[in-house]
Amino acid sequence: MPSSSPKPASRFPVPSIEGLPEDLRARILEVQQKSGFVPNVFLAFAHRPDEFRAFFAYHDALMDKEGGITKAEREMIVVATSGANECQYCVVAHGAILRIRAKNPHIADQVAVNYRKADITPRQQAMLDFAMKVSRQAERVGEGDFEAMRKHGFTDEDIWDVGAIAAFFALSNRMANLTNMRPNDEFYMLGRAPR
Amino acid sequence: MPSSSPKPASRFPVPSIEGLPEDLRARILEVQQKSGFVPNVFLAFAHRPDEFRAFFAYHDALMDKEGGITKAEREMIVVATSGANECQYCVVAHGAILRIRAKNPHIADQVAVNYRKADITPRQQAMLDFAMKVSRQAERVGEGDFEAMRKHGFTDEDIWDVGAIAAFFALSNRMANLTNMRPNDEFYMLGRAPR
Amino acid sequence: MPSSSPKPASRFPVPSIEGLPEDLRARILEVQQKSGFVPNVFLAFAHRPDEFRAFFAYHDALMDKEGGITKAEREMIVVATSGANECQYCVVAHGAILRIRAKNPHIADQVAVNYRKADITPRQQAMLDFAMKVSRQAERVGEGDFEAMRKHGFTDEDIWDVGAIAAFFALSNRMANLTNMRPNDEFYMLGRAPR
Amino acid sequence: MPSSSPKPASRFPVPSIEGLPEDLRARILEVQQKSGFVPNVFLAFAHRPDEFRAFFAYHDALMDKEGGITKAEREMIVVATSGANECQYCVVAHGAILRIRAKNPHIADQVAVNYRKADITPRQQAMLDFAMKVSRQAERVGEGDFEAMRKHGFTDEDIWDVGAIAAFFALSNRMANLTNMRPNDEFYMLGRAPR
Amino acid sequence: MPSSSPKPASRFPVPSIEGLPEDLRARILEVQQKSGFVPNVFLAFAHRPDEFRAFFAYHDALMDKEGGITKAEREMIVVATSGANECQYCVVAHGAILRIRAKNPHIADQVAVNYRKADITPRQQAMLDFAMKVSRQAERVGEGDFEAMRKHGFTDEDIWDVGAIAAFFALSNRMANLTNMRPNDEFYMLGRAPR
Amino acid sequence: MPSSSPKPASRFPVPSIEGLPEDLRARILEVQQKSGFVPNVFLAFAHRPDEFRAFFAYHDALMDKEGGITKAEREMIVVATSGANECQYCVVAHGAILRIRAKNPHIADQVAVNYRKADITPRQQAMLDFAMKVSRQAERVGEGDFEAMRKHGFTDEDIWDVGAIAAFFALSNRMANLTNMRPNDEFYMLGRAPR
Repeated sequence: MPSSSPKPASRFPVPSIEGLPEDLRARILEVQQKSGFVPNVFLAFAHRPDEFRAFFAYHDALMDKEGGITKAEREMIVVATSGANECQYCVVAHGAILRIRAKNPHIADQVAVNYRKADITPRQQAMLDFAMKVSRQAERVGEGDFEAMRKHGFTDEDIWDVGAIAAFFALSNRMANLTNMRPNDEFYMLGRAPR
Repeated sequence: MPSSSPKPASRFPVPSIEGLPEDLRARILEVQQKSGFVPNVFLAFAHRPDEFRAFFAYHDALMDKEGGITKAEREMIVVATSGANECQYCVVAHGAILRIRAKNPHIADQVAVNYRKADITPRQQAMLDFAMKVSRQAERVGEGDFEAMRKHGFTDEDIWDVGAIAAFFALSNRMANLTNMRPNDEFYMLGRAPR
Repeated sequence: MPSSSPKPASRFPVPSIEGLPEDLRARILEVQQKSGFVPNVFLAFAHRPDEFRAFFAYHDALMDKEGGITKAEREMIVVATSGANECQYCVVAHGAILRIRAKNPHIADQVAVNYRKADITPRQQAMLDFAMKVSRQAERVGEGDFEAMRKHGFTDEDIWDVGAIAAFFALSNRMANLTNMRPNDEFYMLGRAPR
Repeated sequence: MPSSSPKPASRFPVPSIEGLPEDLRARILEVQQKSGFVPNVFLAFAHRPDEFRAFFAYHDALMDKEGGITKAEREMIVVATSGANECQYCVVAHGAILRIRAKNPHIADQVAVNYRKADITPRQQAMLDFAMKVSRQAERVGEGDFEAMRKHGFTDEDIWDVGAIAAFFALSNRMANLTNMRPNDEFYMLGRAPR
Repeated sequence: MPSSSPKPASRFPVPSIEGLPEDLRARILEVQQKSGFVPNVFLAFAHRPDEFRAFFAYHDALMDKEGGITKAEREMIVVATSGANECQYCVVAHGAILRIRAKNPHIADQVAVNYRKADITPRQQAMLDFAMKVSRQAERVGEGDFEAMRKHGFTDEDIWDVGAIAAFFALSNRMANLTNMRPNDEFYMLGRAPR
Repeated sequence: MPSSSPKPASRFPVPSIEGLPEDLRARILEVQQKSGFVPNVFLAFAHRPDEFRAFFAYHDALMDKEGGITKAEREMIVVATSGANECQYCVVAHGAILRIRAKNPHIADQVAVNYRKADITPRQQAMLDFAMKVSRQAERVGEGDFEAMRKHGFTDEDIWDVGAIAAFFALSNRMANLTNMRPNDEFYMLGRAPR
């Protein structure tokens, strides 16, 4: 096994937090205070401050929202589509958040590998079917897919949310794979304590 | 043939420009003044002001930049990857911008259908090979792909740009297919006048 | 951008029109007189006179026919399947013919990129669903596909036409990609004048 | 097991030989005299005389030719690509012709299932690699593929032949799958007698 | 054509039968006595006696069983899935067994190339649809697939059998492709004598 | 979230341990004593004692072996290929074993999602490249793949091991997906304690 010496957050340069523009620095210190560490996605994107700002603004607009989709369900969408896109950072990091938000230590591993076999409701299965179609075959999304969602009580605003999260993480997964974004060691254990 | 009556910009509600937050309204009026029409992507995203802001901030950070990749080449990346993702809005709208920026009336149709057969330089072929890998198989991007780019003189900052544009339009293509975003009629003819 | 110097019609030798067998020469001069230029497909196939004769005989048998499928619809099939097969020559050249036959300057670009989002009737959608299945997964065509066509009023003869056009352009697309068949510059603008 | 009652040659109408245009009738009687039976491909295409003429003219131009590719090798291309396209008629009928032309009772079954494991020469492997690329991914055929063929001594005319046969059977396979073209019982045993 | 000199059963070492552990030797001599030759699968696996024992114990548990699936139908599953997996040994060897068990000289070639066009019953079509899904997309097998089987009268025990045979030959096909397992010449003609 | 009530080990009947044949019972009690629980794969296969015996005999022949491939590396092959095959049981259960054998709490999640980004040696990358090819495209495995392995010092016996493990879990993954085999809750936390 390779040694456990610190591995870089990204294959691109990672700036020191001190030298960052004030708004980036504030955001990073805030998340550090809250989480106890700085998730590497912040360090990797700090290389490009304008992209950092847009990326996290987009992220927050979709993920911190209230509505017909719970925050745990939003993370399920991230984990399922990131698994299909083989994005290590997103599966490990958002897997942790999903475990915490769902208060369920097993759900993330299940959804990442094969959401069709996960302990989720039929409504959540339909939500992930739709998200996966947007993630992998958006060109084929049509009226029938909207109908299938409506049958489970999703509103059109909910459907936008589901599709937009899948679309945003299509971007995010590609940036993580491009930059060799490395999941922080801390994520692996978060939320695994039994209920 | 169906009649040419006006078709909606999006399958989701499209707000009136008057009722939009001031910053969205200003941005839309600016583009309208410059282009003579409001591209439907602005109307479709106006349904979600926070996502509108993040989306265009991200877009501008990547597409209006100077650097080792020209603005025409940035549009080539958009057109090639959007063709592979079967995104009608992006191919038609960015095809128009590509024709204008490249001052070449044929390039967009060539790149959209099969960039391997387009009238582009070997360096541009390599750039699109990389962009297509990020767009379609980002999980396989590795050191060999970076090496292939460097052989053509691309710096690591250029490579980030190429990959990030491909990643951003992975998002954009999915939103356009989700919302049935309709290319404005004006785009089809832009930039087709012979040189 | 590369210069606009004349590019070869094919990567294989292109004979001079003067030296061709009389029947090929007559056909080529006829199309030149009618169109004002010689489409490169004629020059590329002239390298092999027997294949030229068979190719255009087959083409004419399918494309110039009257019946339940209009000539514009026949071109739609060509453009949709050639887009899926990434055939630059066929999308550009038959895109022009489709615009002219359909008297619609936008239809070809829509159908080439994603026919599911094009301004076409449900019947035409079903026709293109069937054509795409023959083009991309003919081994799976079965009774259910015939039934779906009949529900839209297509006769079995119509279905043969749709399938045979998709099959013929499976050949044509491959020959164009094999020979690097180049679309003539003239095609790009044909049929784009507003209605 | 289903009974062995006669099965139709095609799901479309099959005309009686007597009522066919003279040239079709002559061709069919000639093949019947030579082979002892009428291969169903003649009956299936007889439903459309113009397509029949073009199809067999194209076939003969490619398959009965002398040149750098032997007749047995031409049949190998048919069998390998038809196997990949899951075309029952073409694998069974051309498998028989391949066995006869190659004087080898095993070669057809080997090539149909996995040509990479067949008892063929490295030059034939390269030929089938090229044919399979034209058959399945023609949009990616490029200079490197031509180079690989030239290393094995193939001329550009040979390469056209290989590519054109793969392209023609892309059409043929689709027509056979569209029409449910049924291989005649006679084909299964032809050429299987030990050498 | 390459010469017909004896080809090795496997790319890995093939032990002499005399030196094998007694149980392997007995099994091999028994099959030789029954069939008149030693199928190469026995020689290839004899390189690893423990794997040999487990492999054939598994094989016998699934293939020699009585139940709702006939022995001929069990071989159909092998031939159809091995065709999809491009396994030459399994298609040729089990094709022979299928012809013998089904008393039908054509069935194996039909099923190997495209089972959807084979002379089999609708119940057998459904069985092969299920087997192919297990073989190629097991991650998507769900309640709907079980329901489709039950409609044709398959019990849950039958469904296990169908799925388990497809799963076992997923292993077998991979071992044959890994080892270049060569079908014995004898298999090609077995069961081809007309009924 | 669904309640945490006990979920069945398999969608097929699960026999009581008491009623099992003696050898199965002994094996199960042994693993229970060693692990503190009965992994569900034993319960699911107990429904078919003959298949149970063959399955675990095969498993043990491959996984408990000494040789050029360490036991941790054998588990890496299982986790990587099971991730690609979306097999929840195998990823979760063998992920636990991998963590324990490698004494590395992060390795399993990395390898399951994208082994190309995992903290493993170049030799292990090459091993997983080969295993993935056997798992997903065995029909294309050829001399070049053996050469790539030999460059990293793998012997032919090692290569058989790697390929055979990938092949065996092609079977195992399909049985788990067929039976809805459920990972025991215990597996999720095993081996996650920091080093």
